[in-house]
Amino acid sequence: MPVTLDANEGSPNQSPPAEPPAEASLGINAGRLRDSLIALSRFGAHPGGGAHRFAFSKEELAARAWITGEMESAGLKVRTDPAGNLFGRREGKESLPAILFGSHLDTVPQGGHYDGTLGVLGALEVLRALGEQRIETRHPLEMVVWCDEEGAHFGNGLFGSRAATGAVHDGELDRLGEDGLSLHEWIERYGLDPKALERAVLDPRRVRAVFELHIEQGGNLEREGCKIAVVEGIVGIHRFEVNVGGFQNHAGTTPMAERKDAMLTAAHLIVAVHQEIRALPGDQVGNVGQLAVSPDAANVVPGAVRFPIELRDLKDEVVDDIIERIGARGDRLAAETDCTVRVHRTLREPPAGMDPGLRALLYKLAREAGHEPLSLPSRAGHDAQNTARHGIPTAMIFVPSRAGISHNPDEWTSWEDCARGVDLLRRAVLAVDTA
Amino acid sequence: MPVTLDANEGSPNQSPPAEPPAEASLGINAGRLRDSLIALSRFGAHPGGGAHRFAFSKEELAARAWITGEMESAGLKVRTDPAGNLFGRREGKESLPAILFGSHLDTVPQGGHYDGTLGVLGALEVLRALGEQRIETRHPLEMVVWCDEEGAHFGNGLFGSRAATGAVHDGELDRLGEDGLSLHEWIERYGLDPKALERAVLDPRRVRAVFELHIEQGGNLEREGCKIAVVEGIVGIHRFEVNVGGFQNHAGTTPMAERKDAMLTAAHLIVAVHQEIRALPGDQVGNVGQLAVSPDAANVVPGAVRFPIELRDLKDEVVDDIIERIGARGDRLAAETDCTVRVHRTLREPPAGMDPGLRALLYKLAREAGHEPLSLPSRAGHDAQNTARHGIPTAMIFVPSRAGISHNPDEWTSWEDCARGVDLLRRAVLAVDTA
Repeated sequence: MPVTLDANEGSPNQSPPAEPPAEASLGINAGRLRDSLIALSRFGAHPGGGAHRFAFSKEELAARAWITGEMESAGLKVRTDPAGNLFGRREGKESLPAILFGSHLDTVPQGGHYDGTLGVLGALEVLRALGEQRIETRHPLEMVVWCDEEGAHFGNGLFGSRAATGAVHDGELDRLGEDGLSLHEWIERYGLDPKALERAVLDPRRVRAVFELHIEQGGNLEREGCKIAVVEGIVGIHRFEVNVGGFQNHAGTTPMAERKDAMLTAAHLIVAVHQEIRALPGDQVGNVGQLAVSPDAANVVPGAVRFPIELRDLKDEVVDDIIERIGARGDRLAAETDCTVRVHRTLREPPAGMDPGLRALLYKLAREAGHEPLSLPSRAGHDAQNTARHGIPTAMIFVPSRAGISHNPDEWTSWEDCARGVDLLRRAVLAVDTA
Repeated sequence: MPVTLDANEGSPNQSPPAEPPAEASLGINAGRLRDSLIALSRFGAHPGGGAHRFAFSKEELAARAWITGEMESAGLKVRTDPAGNLFGRREGKESLPAILFGSHLDTVPQGGHYDGTLGVLGALEVLRALGEQRIETRHPLEMVVWCDEEGAHFGNGLFGSRAATGAVHDGELDRLGEDGLSLHEWIERYGLDPKALERAVLDPRRVRAVFELHIEQGGNLEREGCKIAVVEGIVGIHRFEVNVGGFQNHAGTTPMAERKDAMLTAAHLIVAVHQEIRALPGDQVGNVGQLAVSPDAANVVPGAVRFPIELRDLKDEVVDDIIERIGARGDRLAAETDCTVRVHRTLREPPAGMDPGLRALLYKLAREAGHEPLSLPSRAGHDAQNTARHGIPTAMIFVPSRAGISHNPDEWTSWEDCARGVDLLRRAVLAVDTA
């Protein structure tokens, strides 16, 4: 049975439908938040469970149309910038910079229903609650739906927040995705003008603070029995492309000893990649999540194999050390197997620290709400890293992920934990407004 | 520069344009044979060299249209059977079973210009030469272009000759290829009726003998300095599908020690597959030529990996032994890595012996033409194995492949070697006719 948020309700894998936290203690409507998460989960619901809602897909386009309507009916002034970022603004009483908060709606292939979505619908709920409660703020408040966070089409990800902070790479818009289309073309299909991309760049003086509420995607909160984490910083993300070259030949007639088999060399190297990541002390991580074989036939000795290596750590030196060791292993394997092995970097996202003042504020507010928070690094990349690097004070709130599962249909956060996070977001926005 | 047959002429990688063998010694027109090979090489010529002419592709369809015209202008009566096999018939003087010879025109992805093609155009040249020389035969002579030999779309290959010998598996026509279309649908797109497939089955009493001329696709003839090999038998081909199941998770937030990474387990297993193939004495071969990762994203720990294993040997027991060892390695790896590993058989093509009488005849004729032949097994599968199993006396002629390279754009056989093979085919057809 497909895993959808509503169908999953009360399944044995889920915590029992708990009492919602006493509404008095929450300044938001937890039921409305839940309803909006369920409504959104239907866009790109995958037959095998989870959400399959690539940036620029028709499913994501439908989700954006839906949330645009929700934002408008919440009284927000909606605009889309030239990078496809969607903003919903509520004016303040004074002429001050905006307080910006949100996340993203796109997913990895067959991902979960909370990653990104909670931050977007949480932002909407905060604005709805303030509207209902007729609370006026000094600062304008803006929710944001960042475009193409996951990079499912084009590899790099965080596209919208990079465009909003002047961090889109040269030529990135012209690079072809696996569908043979460029980001340039996709942006045009959205009815936007890719040539106007620089108009998407935010002026840091016009943004007072950025908040992003997100699921942890790891198991620390659950393990420690905590409900809230304040993020101390976001790890650097580094990607490398490996090209193994062998010699394409007939898989029947070529004696084993005479083969230059790119697949076999690649298999040895993937094992070596994992050995080198784990050879160093520390909790650095790495992944080989894709592999392309040429010519891709059961009866042909592969002539070429290509795969990405992704490495993440708070320290760039650790990543540099690991990739150097991997390169040395590749050279040795190439000599042993008479293949070629080339490793080149395709992405370097340096680590990003969160704003100390906002972190301290989130700590204090979480305690006031009755939750002792954890302080955690984020090993996932987030749009918040780009606003932080752009000089805008930025902070992130994490809520628990069951069993640390994420980028998976089984990703799951209880309704209560969702609501607690959104209420802390509301408190943070109001505290910054009145500070 | 794209490698095409004509552009390649005189390149440093090619033997110098040698004197054609004295035409007196050949009963065929070597120049016309060469021209037809060049003409055909343009259908599906790959920008990176070689031929990319999948069965049922528009490139193959164009090649079939072209050869149909050539066959008709050679005075042959052309028909297509319900499996897409193309026959060109020249009647004999007596009411006798036909002598059938040919090969195939489809290629693997970016394959070479000789595999299959030489056997088809060689058959055409034999019939053209006999026509020109006004040689009438007692038996009808039929050339054949077998359909979908390589199985590039649907995995199993040898489709046309299996259909002609009643060896198409149940449900095979309904299985979807990677393009989401079934063989059933492709056959209909050819304008044929897949429901009439059983009408393609040849009556063994109506075929006196089958010959297939082919390039060796191995390096034995070149190594021994021989020009002709008579094939003693065709190895069995066995395919297995491996499914590795892990747990799809976030590649940043999941600690290395907590991952169930299907890609890493698959990499270990591919290394083990090669170790087990080479652990036994003998010259059995095996290949892993494809790999599919799910969900196929750089930033997601793979939840599933699927790949085929192909094993070939003249003895089925050797293959059974190897796959049992591979299964044991898979079980051990599954336990060690907390993944699942399942191996199941998808193809068993038993070995096929060639007809002893026809082999002796080819031996004698090769010697008479001045060439001491080798006797070789074929480690590649060929349509000839199906007619042999169907009870039709069948034999194969091999000519040299430079450096043993095949299923590769650099596949190459000299024009003289091509012509020698075709002339031996002519001699064999005439010898059987008058025997």
